[in-house]
Amino acid sequence: MRVGDLDETELLARVVPLMPTEALLGPGDDAALVAAPDGRVVATTDLLVEGRDFRRDWSTGADVGWKAVAQNVADVAAMGARCSGLLIGLGMPADLEVAWVEDFAAGVAAACERFGAVVVGGDLSAASEVLVAVTALGDLAGRAPVLRSGARPGHVVAVAGRLGRSAAGLDLLQRGVPDAPPELLAAHRRPEPPLAAGPAAAEAGASALMDVSDGLLRDAGRLAVASGVSVELSTRTVLGEWIDDLGDPAPVLTGGEDHALLGCFPPGVELPAPFAVVGRVVERGEHGVLVDGRAWTGSTGWDHFSR
Amino acid sequence: MRVGDLDETELLARVVPLMPTEALLGPGDDAALVAAPDGRVVATTDLLVEGRDFRRDWSTGADVGWKAVAQNVADVAAMGARCSGLLIGLGMPADLEVAWVEDFAAGVAAACERFGAVVVGGDLSAASEVLVAVTALGDLAGRAPVLRSGARPGHVVAVAGRLGRSAAGLDLLQRGVPDAPPELLAAHRRPEPPLAAGPAAAEAGASALMDVSDGLLRDAGRLAVASGVSVELSTRTVLGEWIDDLGDPAPVLTGGEDHALLGCFPPGVELPAPFAVVGRVVERGEHGVLVDGRAWTGSTGWDHFSR
Repeated sequence: MRVGDLDETELLARVVPLMPTEALLGPGDDAALVAAPDGRVVATTDLLVEGRDFRRDWSTGADVGWKAVAQNVADVAAMGARCSGLLIGLGMPADLEVAWVEDFAAGVAAACERFGAVVVGGDLSAASEVLVAVTALGDLAGRAPVLRSGARPGHVVAVAGRLGRSAAGLDLLQRGVPDAPPELLAAHRRPEPPLAAGPAAAEAGASALMDVSDGLLRDAGRLAVASGVSVELSTRTVLGEWIDDLGDPAPVLTGGEDHALLGCFPPGVELPAPFAVVGRVVERGEHGVLVDGRAWTGSTGWDHFSR
Repeated sequence: MRVGDLDETELLARVVPLMPTEALLGPGDDAALVAAPDGRVVATTDLLVEGRDFRRDWSTGADVGWKAVAQNVADVAAMGARCSGLLIGLGMPADLEVAWVEDFAAGVAAACERFGAVVVGGDLSAASEVLVAVTALGDLAGRAPVLRSGARPGHVVAVAGRLGRSAAGLDLLQRGVPDAPPELLAAHRRPEPPLAAGPAAAEAGASALMDVSDGLLRDAGRLAVASGVSVELSTRTVLGEWIDDLGDPAPVLTGGEDHALLGCFPPGVELPAPFAVVGRVVERGEHGVLVDGRAWTGSTGWDHFSR
């Protein structure tokens, strides 16, 4: 059965019950109602487009649903917050199998269970390619949000989560490598952002925090610009901690979509697990990011339009 | 200049400053922070896809930006709330003119000014067609949300705003009518939902409220199902009030996208302007909606997949 064989009401009746939808008021009315107990709400949105952000021959519907949730809850965690609700827009061609949509919803549900999230609303639309628009809401529990702009010279730079795994998995898919390591393919298809590290970093007194979605170098560069500082990274610490099995540092430094957290902490702060030091913050210099004391001359990560 | 000539940072630097972005924390970090003063937040999302929801030869970028905002703030109003923030995802082909994106942002800004909204976040992505994903957040100011499910037999049914104008404008564009009435084309391109009527209905004690996005009959049918009632509409009141200049009742009863508000009120409630009575709520019968005492046998409005 294909999407075009059902009307919107019938399609919603099939997929909404597959997902956890508890909220003050969930799907079914003109809008949802979500608790915002401290009088503020964190909000972030992402678009995923078939052929750009995923391929249906490389990822199942469930993989796409998982990833759409994971990358948005990671953005919420990167403010130091916990996700309080998701809104999911899904555009699809009329000839898409309904089974794919049900699988997508199952992936959303699995990620919701893993990350402690619920779906409060959404929208369906026809489109010529599959596209997913997710908005995540979050609760800071009274804490101040941790911005990108608070890093100061002398602070340590640390990463929670793994780097380069998603890019390595994508590379294996692109090259069609047989018997590719399943854990690298899984890292691309179903990233596991270390969500609890976000609120933990906020509690510990992190001065800056962000999601590493476009590669460590590119995102550290953004943090450096926002904070008016430079960041010195050490490949020994970055590489030593995460990917002994990959020789080339480039995927670790530039690969996106692992949704690790990049945090800066004032001196003397005990880093919450699983943060590990990867560098330090220095006065703003000619380059926003230095790798082992030098400017990086390779590619710097993902950009939607320039590659 | 085309979108593909710029990287994401450059494109954001061009369009973000065109829009009002005041919030506790607006665009630029991993997520926004929006005030939710009564401890709850209303949230709704919509996808607009080129070729389905708009055509670039019939609507300017500014028209598309306006409409994307209008239909989402209408959903917030339909809960009885006021918009507290918008998140806007924009997908586009690399060969799209940057001027179109700037025009889109100007249309978003114009609608924000008209409707009292601000943009707090968003996302850009490459796509093979232009697509817009808007999430609107809203504040109920301590009121209970007005749902679709509260209508009871004996309540009056009323509409605020005009009906059938957007569909009439779309029909003129589809038929290529020269010298079409500009106000009908404008109704299609830049709908003007009667936003203030939402909170006013909530204050007045409306028992049910919803946005008329897919046509009065279809949306009244949804309200009837949600409330477990039937709705009797009178074409004399519906037509007499709004479109003396259109003879056929079908566009008024089935045309979508005007984003009028459909409300039900207990007997004796003084209707807030501009609500006007169009019918009454009765015990649930064989048909969810009756028109002049009979079941409607024509088409019932917009469905994304079945037409």
